[in-house]
Amino acid sequence: MTDGCDGDAADSGTTDGGWTDAEEEIMLATYRALLEHGYAGLSISRIADELGKSKASIYYHYDSKEDLLGAFLAYAADRFQSSVLTEADDDPRAELERVVEKLLPLRPDEEMRQIQAVFLGLRGQAVTNDTFREQFTEIDDQLAATIRGIVERGIEEGTFRDVDADRVAEHVLATINGAMYGRATSDRETAVAAVRVSLSSYLDAELRRQS
Amino acid sequence: MTDGCDGDAADSGTTDGGWTDAEEEIMLATYRALLEHGYAGLSISRIADELGKSKASIYYHYDSKEDLLGAFLAYAADRFQSSVLTEADDDPRAELERVVEKLLPLRPDEEMRQIQAVFLGLRGQAVTNDTFREQFTEIDDQLAATIRGIVERGIEEGTFRDVDADRVAEHVLATINGAMYGRATSDRETAVAAVRVSLSSYLDAELRRQS
Repeated sequence: MTDGCDGDAADSGTTDGGWTDAEEEIMLATYRALLEHGYAGLSISRIADELGKSKASIYYHYDSKEDLLGAFLAYAADRFQSSVLTEADDDPRAELERVVEKLLPLRPDEEMRQIQAVFLGLRGQAVTNDTFREQFTEIDDQLAATIRGIVERGIEEGTFRDVDADRVAEHVLATINGAMYGRATSDRETAVAAVRVSLSSYLDAELRRQS
Repeated sequence: MTDGCDGDAADSGTTDGGWTDAEEEIMLATYRALLEHGYAGLSISRIADELGKSKASIYYHYDSKEDLLGAFLAYAADRFQSSVLTEADDDPRAELERVVEKLLPLRPDEEMRQIQAVFLGLRGQAVTNDTFREQFTEIDDQLAATIRGIVERGIEEGTFRDVDADRVAEHVLATINGAMYGRATSDRETAVAAVRVSLSSYLDAELRRQS
């Protein structure tokens, strides 16, 4: 998501995720505008500025800012999912750790902090906004499915105990989301490190095959 | 928090938490206004309506809506803390379960859902608002200290293993916050039940004394 898409791609092309090049250009411009202005300062004008095109070229694809942000959440979720799948690890325990580090890095850089703050802003809207709510339902469903899939693979391969993969996945996802949310909204910097250590030892104990 | 304070208490009185009766009346009026209008619809006028007094009588105590909401968060945290301490249970494992159920009830009523949505709205502001950020730092510090205190008591009494109480407390708090946050911002109703079961079995396994 950090590598800009500055090319002059034709509207007819599509990327792997089923997004046209034009849509993807708008998504990347939205990403840059969100990083620069935050969720509160986002406008179609500013996205158009980042895009170097007219507002009309955005409204051609999206009816409203809300519509565009809904698409942006879907795009970001797609990108995250692809990056997890691409880097799949042979060892399911190592892969779990990698997913946790991706979602809840011990030392997030400034861009990661900003993008998590943006997501938190959008997620706050999901309390009352059905479009955002559907997107976050989808995002959490996907993340839980990714974690569950790794646990299930570990069970099938005989590396993990025969645990309830769904429960483990929901537990891990809630813990990650809570720690991320806490980091963005409080000054409790050491909490994330404590959670990461505890989550690791929980996974070790929960998934370890009894000898 | 649900029992209104409709009396005509004199301004000179104070409650156990160090709040004057006048301040507490304003806090309860704020609570009712938040339940009725949500965070977005909250105004000093509406709080004054609930209070049955003039706006000036609120501005006498609080400089701004932000100042008042900061105090409201402190008040709510005090009340929660008192209710946890008042009902202290002899058995530390049962007490932990009670705190979890209080923060993340399996079947929250409508009022609980609304107040959690309100807190989520305020917490979203904490990304950029220092007053709210300080309050949520304090709230999470208090909640973590409550959980840690119960775990430490269990260790001292010999009921629990000699675990790192801080890590367990941060893990439990993050998991509760994440599940609460997820429930308010998505339609994944079964996730909380899975998290509750998993959290319970995590605590059993983590705290159980090896025989």
